[in-house]
Amino acid sequence: MPTRTAREISSAGNSLLKVFRRALAEGTTRQSWLAVEGPFLVEEALRAAPGVRIHSLLVSKSGAEKFSHLLKLLPAEAETVQVADRLFAQVAQTQTPQGVAALVELPPPDLEQLLVRRDAVMLVACGVQDPGNLGTMLRSAQAFGATALLTLKDTVSPFNPKAVRSSAGAIFRLPVVPGLEAGTLFELLRKRGIRLLAADRRSPSSLAQADLRAPLAILVGREATGLPPEISQEAQQFLSIPICPGMDSVNAATAASIFLYEAARQRGFKY
Amino acid sequence: MPTRTAREISSAGNSLLKVFRRALAEGTTRQSWLAVEGPFLVEEALRAAPGVRIHSLLVSKSGAEKFSHLLKLLPAEAETVQVADRLFAQVAQTQTPQGVAALVELPPPDLEQLLVRRDAVMLVACGVQDPGNLGTMLRSAQAFGATALLTLKDTVSPFNPKAVRSSAGAIFRLPVVPGLEAGTLFELLRKRGIRLLAADRRSPSSLAQADLRAPLAILVGREATGLPPEISQEAQQFLSIPICPGMDSVNAATAASIFLYEAARQRGFKY
Repeated sequence: MPTRTAREISSAGNSLLKVFRRALAEGTTRQSWLAVEGPFLVEEALRAAPGVRIHSLLVSKSGAEKFSHLLKLLPAEAETVQVADRLFAQVAQTQTPQGVAALVELPPPDLEQLLVRRDAVMLVACGVQDPGNLGTMLRSAQAFGATALLTLKDTVSPFNPKAVRSSAGAIFRLPVVPGLEAGTLFELLRKRGIRLLAADRRSPSSLAQADLRAPLAILVGREATGLPPEISQEAQQFLSIPICPGMDSVNAATAASIFLYEAARQRGFKY
Repeated sequence: MPTRTAREISSAGNSLLKVFRRALAEGTTRQSWLAVEGPFLVEEALRAAPGVRIHSLLVSKSGAEKFSHLLKLLPAEAETVQVADRLFAQVAQTQTPQGVAALVELPPPDLEQLLVRRDAVMLVACGVQDPGNLGTMLRSAQAFGATALLTLKDTVSPFNPKAVRSSAGAIFRLPVVPGLEAGTLFELLRKRGIRLLAADRRSPSSLAQADLRAPLAILVGREATGLPPEISQEAQQFLSIPICPGMDSVNAATAASIFLYEAARQRGFKY
């Protein structure tokens, strides 16, 4: 097997380095490729389902030695670029850069196909603001066999670097459709017979007693204020996670995860 | 009713202001009183169970007007100090200070009494590093009716300011025993007949099928690496939260919350 040769770049003004620097800060390139940093996320991207495409891999000199096993996983068409450690540190967003980053194209999600799945469990983020929370929801959604994460406008981007890190690689595995318009989405969901669920701690219907085996969309609101009224009125069923008197709620990502766990539990965790 | 009069301080070198500044940065004063900032946490402290004692309330001039309803809740023996907005901002740790902070003494936890409760559900944090995660666990523990949070040495402090914020006030309501020595604690738990549970995704016993109604201690490990072997070997039962192939785990706080939810669900959410 021929050894992969990495192109070396020594100028900080190189256009690919500029693309990496901007994309690692913002989360994506202009053509919406995801920029990820560190061996964990790069390996997750490399091992993810077909359709996830690595366009460019950037390694530092010491990263190239340390992560040679990752370079071996790279498909032939991916470009590999090596820079001095000092230059990598200028491009990286982390405090102690580990010397490997990649530009990754996710497969375009097919919303229509996601809507007709008979096992649909979709998480719909409606105004979630904290990227760590959104990433944790994404991680739980994938772990508990949900079929997609949909996000409305006015929700933090699932491609925000902190959301991607918190997703622990789930971003490469679960279909994600961001930035949807509420009215359009809810009409589509209703047309396809997908039940719209929301958490409401005052509801007499308990999550554990509700039947969660039909196609579902779980609406999750903003951290401090929950679902805005115009979204809330679209929900067809409100379920409570019973909690102690005196406590107002659990963390938004925790609540979403418990809904997803309960749906998976009732469906018999068929993995 | 006489109007409460606040002592005014105008010198940045005042010793109480120094105590507030240091404690808001570190989480506690030297005598282990909790320092909290912002109207939400201050109100939670004021409304918490008896035994939670507010020693000092610090308000900015504009905070005193905006949060007069909080000042009315203050017990007579609490000291109230008012400073100029500019001086408050120097003491505060937040980017946009809201003008109210407090020093709060929590009731000393009685571990022996916690150990003999027949409804015991204790969360034991064994090496959790992220204060946001620990605070989220604390919030879930209180919400789902757990009886205590215990933390081992080498675990982030539950009084870390970020942990306190993530707890959303649960820190004032749930007994917390920090910094325990592992060997001593596990011997005590076993002696009291409290079952030691841990999550292990390879376990054939599923969380949902296990009986969680007896007195329990749930061990939660470090975010990336889980329980260290010397702690893991102390567990008497390993339960899996079934998750999708390809995913290694869910977030540590999510896993802890799902254990707590499941225990509460089986106990019939008797609140």
